[in-house]
Amino acid sequence: MFPSLISADRSARQMALVALIIAMAMDAPHAAESGEERKAPTMAEVLASTAASDWRDLDAGNTLYLELPAGRVVIELAPRFAPKHVDNIRTLAREGYFDGLAILRAQDNYVVQWGDPESGNVDKARSMKRGASSLEAEFAVGFDPSFPFTPLPDGDGYAPLVGFSDGFAAARDTGEKRTWLTHCYGAVGAGRDVAANSGSGSELYVVIGHAPRHLDRNVTLVGRVVQGIELLSTLPRGTAALGFYDRAEQRVPIKSIRIAADVAETERVPLQVMRTDTRSWAALVESRRNRRDEWYLRAAGHVELCNVPIPVRLRPGSVDKS
Amino acid sequence: MFPSLISADRSARQMALVALIIAMAMDAPHAAESGEERKAPTMAEVLASTAASDWRDLDAGNTLYLELPAGRVVIELAPRFAPKHVDNIRTLAREGYFDGLAILRAQDNYVVQWGDPESGNVDKARSMKRGASSLEAEFAVGFDPSFPFTPLPDGDGYAPLVGFSDGFAAARDTGEKRTWLTHCYGAVGAGRDVAANSGSGSELYVVIGHAPRHLDRNVTLVGRVVQGIELLSTLPRGTAALGFYDRAEQRVPIKSIRIAADVAETERVPLQVMRTDTRSWAALVESRRNRRDEWYLRAAGHVELCNVPIPVRLRPGSVDKS
Repeated sequence: MFPSLISADRSARQMALVALIIAMAMDAPHAAESGEERKAPTMAEVLASTAASDWRDLDAGNTLYLELPAGRVVIELAPRFAPKHVDNIRTLAREGYFDGLAILRAQDNYVVQWGDPESGNVDKARSMKRGASSLEAEFAVGFDPSFPFTPLPDGDGYAPLVGFSDGFAAARDTGEKRTWLTHCYGAVGAGRDVAANSGSGSELYVVIGHAPRHLDRNVTLVGRVVQGIELLSTLPRGTAALGFYDRAEQRVPIKSIRIAADVAETERVPLQVMRTDTRSWAALVESRRNRRDEWYLRAAGHVELCNVPIPVRLRPGSVDKS
Repeated sequence: MFPSLISADRSARQMALVALIIAMAMDAPHAAESGEERKAPTMAEVLASTAASDWRDLDAGNTLYLELPAGRVVIELAPRFAPKHVDNIRTLAREGYFDGLAILRAQDNYVVQWGDPESGNVDKARSMKRGASSLEAEFAVGFDPSFPFTPLPDGDGYAPLVGFSDGFAAARDTGEKRTWLTHCYGAVGAGRDVAANSGSGSELYVVIGHAPRHLDRNVTLVGRVVQGIELLSTLPRGTAALGFYDRAEQRVPIKSIRIAADVAETERVPLQVMRTDTRSWAALVESRRNRRDEWYLRAAGHVELCNVPIPVRLRPGSVDKS
């Protein structure tokens, strides 16, 4: 089976070999080559040879289930990068704040965003019980040497150093001793108004297009979508300014947002995320820097931060009963 | 009205000011500042101050109309970069080759692709009259000093030099004297099998996710979508390997693909593309390198090639009667 841009040859398409769930575009493997010229594995080969220790379970306390009429979107929260926002989102989810709100905006090649359609109307805006409607910005946080970070071998135009921190694409400035999450596809952030502290996580957006990295350090990122992003990326685009929906009936209702830990275990999705501090991870990154799949005639020798997928799979032996 | 990630404040959303059609995410303007600290215009200000000479009409002979049940997608072809493929696509369109074929694949954060569902079946595959089913690859072409190219001020990890060539994001290697189109959002390419010369434009794909720049110089790009990409980017994702649709009924039928020049003038869309060799263009690029809209607290001082939108608008005074 050949990679990515193969013609629609039916027999080729039927040769599906790999059942791993991965978060982004994945090329299929070609037949194993013999001989020594094979220098490095393809991504499919890396994934096929991972050990249990190359994966970690999602932490149910840091996992959000966004329930839409079309299904569930699973979001992993990043408390290390946005502790106050993540706490507040958990509080809001637990008090049912999001339930019955709606997706308000879908802007092509940019973001999908949800929240309270009446947030601008003091009489009708949904009130919060213990959650906060504004919080100190967490555009970047400090770090000490124990803060996990695996650098990408390649440079980046937007940050002095980029890499991966425990499953999240991130950047850091060692001089300033600051680190932050980056706006890659699937990143989840807290919408805000002009004031830096006007967001709180009560309104959230997801990147559904080319990484808008100019937003880095301008807005608080709180996590990333690890499953179900296609339920958001395929939503009809809004036709009002900035992709907002013109009419209330165009909005997609949010059935609920729950913390996975608050959901019965039988209704959770037993997902695992590939660790980003292992030899397997280094091999995966290399497989994306230089494609060795048969289809490729030229290896790039480079990969952009947001072009490295961080794989997600069902825990082996488990069944998604959700 | 504030940019991008504003909370859903109804009154703010109603302040839509700018009716220009642009191809990608666009931030709304803020109130004009007085005083000298204003150093450079925002993108909205650049667009509002362009002259007629900053725009060019689409060439009807190099414009494709992909007609889907949901509407029209407009593609500008790039004969300078892929002369043989563009010629062949015109030939195929004129002989009606594409009419009644289908969208076969929609892979999240990657590509949408169309062609003949039966191409792998010699008995059922649609035959071509004068068009070719395979062509010499045009992954890159040579250039002489007159080949238009406006460099981006910022570096790029995938190519020695990147910039804009008459409305297309492109790259070049001055040592090798080669230039090529790049895989940005909306780029249109000719699918191929493993052999470099196995594509011809009879099967086409469009990038609908983060720029897969590792495909550059591995496949022939033929143009880009200038209007209607949301008709492709919102298609349900295929659930078979590589995003192919499992069942025939999931495929979206292609009503027709026509060259605009072959369509009655009253049924054409009178689009203009912003020129990429003007002072206005340089100002637009700078407005994306450093966001000066009020909402931004930190300017990136950098822009990635694929984060610069190449604006498209209706010709002033015209009406889209299509």
